Amino acid sequence: MSGGTPDQQAAEADRDAVLAANQALYEALETGDLEAVEQAWLGAGEADDKGGVVCVHPGWPVLRGRAQVTRSYMLIMMNTEYIQFFLTDVEAEVQGDVALVTCTENILSGGEAEEEGELGPLVGGKVVSTNLFRRTGDGWKLWSHHGSPVLTSGDDEDED
Amino acid sequence: MSGGTPDQQAAEADRDAVLAANQALYEALETGDLEAVEQAWLGAGEADDKGGVVCVHPGWPVLRGRAQVTRSYMLIMMNTEYIQFFLTDVEAEVQGDVALVTCTENILSGGEAEEEGELGPLVGGKVVSTNLFRRTGDGWKLWSHHGSPVLTSGDDEDED
Repeated sequence: MSGGTPDQQAAEADRDAVLAANQALYEALETGDLEAVEQAWLGAGEADDKGGVVCVHPGWPVLRGRAQVTRSYMLIMMNTEYIQFFLTDVEAEVQGDVALVTCTENILSGGEAEEEGELGPLVGGKVVSTNLFRRTGDGWKLWSHHGSPVLTSGDDEDED
Repeated sequence: MSGGTPDQQAAEADRDAVLAANQALYEALETGDLEAVEQAWLGAGEADDKGGVVCVHPGWPVLRGRAQVTRSYMLIMMNTEYIQFFLTDVEAEVQGDVALVTCTENILSGGEAEEEGELGPLVGGKVVSTNLFRRTGDGWKLWSHHGSPVLTSGDDEDED
């Protein structure tokens, strides 16, 4: 889908960059790379003096600021042997220097193995996420992440 | 908290306006005023042609576009006899024409009454919300709402 006016091309490039930043977050989580997760978020100078980054994990209260957010990912990684994200229903909208991404995280995760060297029981789960990015000199960075469990059995009945 | 440079005063005015828009949303829900709820969201012309508004109610999948969002509020209002929101931990940050509000909704809601004219049993609940607003000619309007149930017993242990 190349072509279009320079404005359209710029908008498409923005959207692609935001989607790549979103994908990078989940890849960092899959590989358990805490440093890469930290890199995905707004840096200290950009965020902490202005109220800072905000994060809600499924079922959790609001976490504010880089220190709380990083600690939460450390806790999650410590308690997760294996995690894989299949993203579906990914939509991105850019408004100036802010971008809103929503997606469904179809998660396959593994608990602790019963025997060493084995993989623990795998659990599937569905989480919907609202990820908010801000444009920085170092690319698009996460300003806010809100993930929540999908508890209903499906879409509205009248969608069927 | 008056005074400060013109820039600071403008930032404070923005923040106050955003907080008022956030409060207005919950008041509209409390009074069951569907029209006021619709007014709180980005209008059709502003939103629908660009991917549109996005809404996640606690435990629900992602809803996109004004039609789906309005229908969801209709459903919620039909099934709610009484609802009251006590907002705590409200924080707002404005970035250009986008504002991020996070808050905890301490909800008191009533089910159907067993006898006519009586109030049904009251249920308490705690929801954390990420509300995203955009500046329009008609004031700050909701672009995205994501609410999720708080399932943990409290904050991290090491906060105590």
